[in-house]
Amino acid sequence: MLEQMGQAAKKASYQLATLSSAKKNQALAVMADTLEANSDVILSANEKDMDAAKASGTSEALLDRLLLTPSRLAAIANDVRHVCRLVDPVGHIIDGSLLDSGLNLQRRRVPLGVVGVIYEARPNVTIDVASLCLKTGNAVILRGGKETVHTNKAMVEVIQLALSQCGLPAAAVQSIDNPDRELINQLLKLDRYVDMLIPRGGAALHRLCRENSTIPVIIGGIGICHTFVDESADFDKALAIIDNAKTQRPSTCNTLETLLVQRSIASTFLPKLSEKMKGSGVTLHASPEAMMYLSGGEAIVVPVIDEDYEKEWLSLDLNVTVVDGLDEAIGHIRAHGSAHSDAILTRSLSNADRFVAEVDSAAVYVNASTRFTDGGQFGLGAEVAVSTQKLHARGPMGLEALTTYKWIGYGDDLIRR
Amino acid sequence: MLEQMGQAAKKASYQLATLSSAKKNQALAVMADTLEANSDVILSANEKDMDAAKASGTSEALLDRLLLTPSRLAAIANDVRHVCRLVDPVGHIIDGSLLDSGLNLQRRRVPLGVVGVIYEARPNVTIDVASLCLKTGNAVILRGGKETVHTNKAMVEVIQLALSQCGLPAAAVQSIDNPDRELINQLLKLDRYVDMLIPRGGAALHRLCRENSTIPVIIGGIGICHTFVDESADFDKALAIIDNAKTQRPSTCNTLETLLVQRSIASTFLPKLSEKMKGSGVTLHASPEAMMYLSGGEAIVVPVIDEDYEKEWLSLDLNVTVVDGLDEAIGHIRAHGSAHSDAILTRSLSNADRFVAEVDSAAVYVNASTRFTDGGQFGLGAEVAVSTQKLHARGPMGLEALTTYKWIGYGDDLIRR
Repeated sequence: MLEQMGQAAKKASYQLATLSSAKKNQALAVMADTLEANSDVILSANEKDMDAAKASGTSEALLDRLLLTPSRLAAIANDVRHVCRLVDPVGHIIDGSLLDSGLNLQRRRVPLGVVGVIYEARPNVTIDVASLCLKTGNAVILRGGKETVHTNKAMVEVIQLALSQCGLPAAAVQSIDNPDRELINQLLKLDRYVDMLIPRGGAALHRLCRENSTIPVIIGGIGICHTFVDESADFDKALAIIDNAKTQRPSTCNTLETLLVQRSIASTFLPKLSEKMKGSGVTLHASPEAMMYLSGGEAIVVPVIDEDYEKEWLSLDLNVTVVDGLDEAIGHIRAHGSAHSDAILTRSLSNADRFVAEVDSAAVYVNASTRFTDGGQFGLGAEVAVSTQKLHARGPMGLEALTTYKWIGYGDDLIRR
Repeated sequence: MLEQMGQAAKKASYQLATLSSAKKNQALAVMADTLEANSDVILSANEKDMDAAKASGTSEALLDRLLLTPSRLAAIANDVRHVCRLVDPVGHIIDGSLLDSGLNLQRRRVPLGVVGVIYEARPNVTIDVASLCLKTGNAVILRGGKETVHTNKAMVEVIQLALSQCGLPAAAVQSIDNPDRELINQLLKLDRYVDMLIPRGGAALHRLCRENSTIPVIIGGIGICHTFVDESADFDKALAIIDNAKTQRPSTCNTLETLLVQRSIASTFLPKLSEKMKGSGVTLHASPEAMMYLSGGEAIVVPVIDEDYEKEWLSLDLNVTVVDGLDEAIGHIRAHGSAHSDAILTRSLSNADRFVAEVDSAAVYVNASTRFTDGGQFGLGAEVAVSTQKLHARGPMGLEALTTYKWIGYGDDLIRR
């Protein structure tokens, strides 16, 4: 079955690759309208998923992620209309020149072809990914979580209806509705048809893809983010940034997980940190040295254990440790980080420059919250994923990351000499 | 052992990443001088490899690839000096802006970190790859062919001597000297330390890497290249291009392997092709329809078999088949090509545009030889590999393909709202 899906997607991708931006935007507009016109079908499919999820004792938090309402669906349709307004990267000439040989060479941006996306519960991802792939002329094979199987199936049927209305191949957007996990393993081997694979989920999913996929995979999404406060930092401003990075939305991958404090200010800064974190309800996981200045303070403090340094808390928990200075801070980040987002809070230009140059992460910040690592915040207009690997795309991936380029050489009957 | 090499390479990469272009160029100059100063050591190591190769009955062609002479070694040293003169892509600001949030964001080009290269017999690749990696601030782990184990070992020792003289870590360039193939499998799993893997060899090596590596792999190098002659083409000019693409250097991956001829000109064009190919000593592998116009001609003709269409001949052999027109030509290329280099010979602007848009290969040509797909020809200054996959880099890879970028955000005590 996947072989057929792959073939159909590849065939569809050839047609999509030659569409004008106007035609793709028209299809996106029809897709948005069709989603709203068929909201009854989608919402009743979502009810089935909700009933099954409730019956199996799913948590309230997860139920809320699963739930679609008329207003949520309208918001999703509006997101599709927003994608219409983004600049289409396809067709852009990256560079080119008339070479000495006489070859008129240019590098043109083109769609990747077929993208595979494996994701978890949220049904909005289905529409989000489908619209971004259509915008960039890519076919997509979706594999959503089993909790949303009815919702996804209904949504993809509506998308395919919209595609057909626009004279586009329905196979441009396909989903694997069978929840059998063996199909994921098959998808991972479909390199004959699929050009890029994006897992959107936890560490286990990324590991599965990294170890088993024969398709190039975008690894990312796991954020063990650090902030280093050096002795020159302004305490009040540092506390505000730390609070923002930890508490603005703790469940996100750009949330601060470990705070590194320079030894020379530990005794003065950490009591203030305790006070601030108490106000935000953050539990501190302190190293023995940090504990000396945190215990007896206002915030809840527990001893940190080694494994905590490699944990994405995704909750109101923060590791706190004391380091001698910049070198030890950089060493800690190299040893324990996930190369996602790391920040230094300092007044020293020299420390800022060294931190930026020597910390090898997708995003590095000076006197700013790690929470900025986000396609929307970076002005990319959309976010396909956040990559923590180094090939193809790093950090927040916008539409451009769904494209590649081809070299085009024009000659006037030209041979190589 | 590989674990230690990986650790050492990663550590070295941190130091390399912060070097100025001047410092890297100085190290390259010292490397070139040291290679020449130690030519005796390298040439006598090469003699050992040559003796072993002769004893095991290695072909003359392969022996010639293995052989180093004083003049070849001098040429290799000069290639290193040439790398000094290339523009260093590291540190370049790709783009950036002051965002509405107040974040001053820039995207800076940085080294990948650690590159792994698995290659076969040629000893010049060792120096070539080492110099390109050093130029871009990457550490490299080399795994050459077992035929050149002594030569590679001697060369890497000389490189490490040069690095030490410049105060750089010797682990910046390491080689796996043990010919045990199990070490390749271990290297493929070293994702904790190695950021990119480049196999330079045949299809089997690429498949091994694709199927087993947990490190992102650059797949490429296999060229099943096509040229389509449509009915509007100038025959004499077409024959010159075909001859160049097939015979200028048949062992290369950008060599023409299958010629597609439009049916309406088959009876007039193919007899001329036969005459031309006879002059170049090319054996034609003809489809039944092409055979009708080729048999009885001057060139040697044999029937093509289906497998031939997916074969990289790398010899003076050329598949010839007849197609109805552009659609069938594109269909054939999609079905049988390796997405490397494909050309159309035509006077029709419309056919040229469609071919360029619809053939999904790394390089597509209009009225030019496929032989142009090459880093040097494309003006890249160097060629790391030729990628036929779509992520990160496509087609000839220059220095830029050995880099990634990081996002750098400067704030004046900035929190996300």
